[in-house]
Amino acid sequence: MCSLTLTRNIKLTIEYDGTAYHGWQSQKNTVAVQDVISSAICRLTDEKCSLTGSSRTDRGVHAFGQVASFKTESQIPAERIAFALNSMLPEDIVIKKSEEVDMDFHARFCAKGKTYKYLIYNFIFPSALLRYRAYHVSYPLDVEAMKQASQYFLGTHDFFAFSATGSSAKTTVRTINSVSIRGSQGDGSHDFPMEVARTVPLTSLEISGDGFLYNMVRIIAGTLIEVGSGKIKPTDIAGIIDGRDRKKAGKTAPAHGLYLVEVNY
Amino acid sequence: MCSLTLTRNIKLTIEYDGTAYHGWQSQKNTVAVQDVISSAICRLTDEKCSLTGSSRTDRGVHAFGQVASFKTESQIPAERIAFALNSMLPEDIVIKKSEEVDMDFHARFCAKGKTYKYLIYNFIFPSALLRYRAYHVSYPLDVEAMKQASQYFLGTHDFFAFSATGSSAKTTVRTINSVSIRGSQGDGSHDFPMEVARTVPLTSLEISGDGFLYNMVRIIAGTLIEVGSGKIKPTDIAGIIDGRDRKKAGKTAPAHGLYLVEVNY
Repeated sequence: MCSLTLTRNIKLTIEYDGTAYHGWQSQKNTVAVQDVISSAICRLTDEKCSLTGSSRTDRGVHAFGQVASFKTESQIPAERIAFALNSMLPEDIVIKKSEEVDMDFHARFCAKGKTYKYLIYNFIFPSALLRYRAYHVSYPLDVEAMKQASQYFLGTHDFFAFSATGSSAKTTVRTINSVSIRGSQGDGSHDFPMEVARTVPLTSLEISGDGFLYNMVRIIAGTLIEVGSGKIKPTDIAGIIDGRDRKKAGKTAPAHGLYLVEVNY
Repeated sequence: MCSLTLTRNIKLTIEYDGTAYHGWQSQKNTVAVQDVISSAICRLTDEKCSLTGSSRTDRGVHAFGQVASFKTESQIPAERIAFALNSMLPEDIVIKKSEEVDMDFHARFCAKGKTYKYLIYNFIFPSALLRYRAYHVSYPLDVEAMKQASQYFLGTHDFFAFSATGSSAKTTVRTINSVSIRGSQGDGSHDFPMEVARTVPLTSLEISGDGFLYNMVRIIAGTLIEVGSGKIKPTDIAGIIDGRDRKKAGKTAPAHGLYLVEVNY
């Protein structure tokens, strides 16, 4: 096995329900999504597998489009790998696509952009159906103020104030290409969040950028929630970014409202 | 307790994730949603509780707006009952609203209309995030044909062909007031089913009527899926209704795609 020259590079697009896992990244004494998929690849190819993911999603965070890649000598047609892996994986992890890519493709370093979504269930009582899918905020949120505030994140900024302490990133400068807030009760633009009930009181944040610092989307979501509750003014956001002080930004919103939607290359 | 005259009638609006329960209605040796709520009411009021639901949803069926009512002597303010019950209920059952209604209100017999939704996840692989929330159909569906077919259900018909055998209903005549099919890839009218991913391949059926026979929505959904796959022609629906032969209609679609959305009085 050691002398194998791995000649193929396979890219996987992955959906997972993060509820049961200790995040994407393998760690001692826990079960991570990466472990479960690596183990299935190992059984499929009979090779030791080194699977690299684009994003180290935290414990409880979900993914509609995580991307990961691994090298192999196996001659299984690329598009069949998804079928084979899905037959071995638990039902909370699904390979949506498997494809062969250039040998120099790297899921993490080649990523040009990512899109995340954060869901808030905004009602006096929690939701039975969305209890692991959206963060419950029981008090009213001013969605218009949140929309206004969200626009200050656009562009290239030093997001030090919006990163978890102890992050190892070389630079805290990131570029946000688009950000939007939608409220199901606000603008009537989407009556069917979850395509189910006429008025599910859901407020969502969608944000795309060239990359995100550790906990950055969750801190932005937490800050926007504090804007929605009136604790932070929309016009304060520019100063909070410039101030580079984590304490001035809002709390880190819980993991279970966060989704990695898409990674672009 | 036996001599109590119950002087107040309380209406509850209830959301539940049906995955863990043997349906709404109490049955021997199983746990039904009705049992769990009745038991909480009993603890709250210290009275024997007779809770009547508007719909006997099957095992695995979800509700955003089930309605139930019970009579009580308790003097707890009506709107506080939801708070008190939610503090005792498991997180997959939530009382969204509690209100006092006339003594002659009956959740089942006073219902004037109901709205159900059926969700189909239409992609080659199942969904990790929607695995208990939508029925997985792996082959392509012709959403336009399903839309055309769905219109034949509108109006007053004898729906004997769309009811489970052994149903005890006195009449199989029902009136459907509205029916709609939406496909996330079809008309682009809703890019955010579940408010999460740009293109979740979800097809939904929403149907409102004065009442539904046992399994009726699931048989209509199953029939429309057979229209979508080309097995049944849209123009065949009228004949299937008129033929009053259960065997001519499609299969009963699984419970976990079905939601009781709303009950009108």
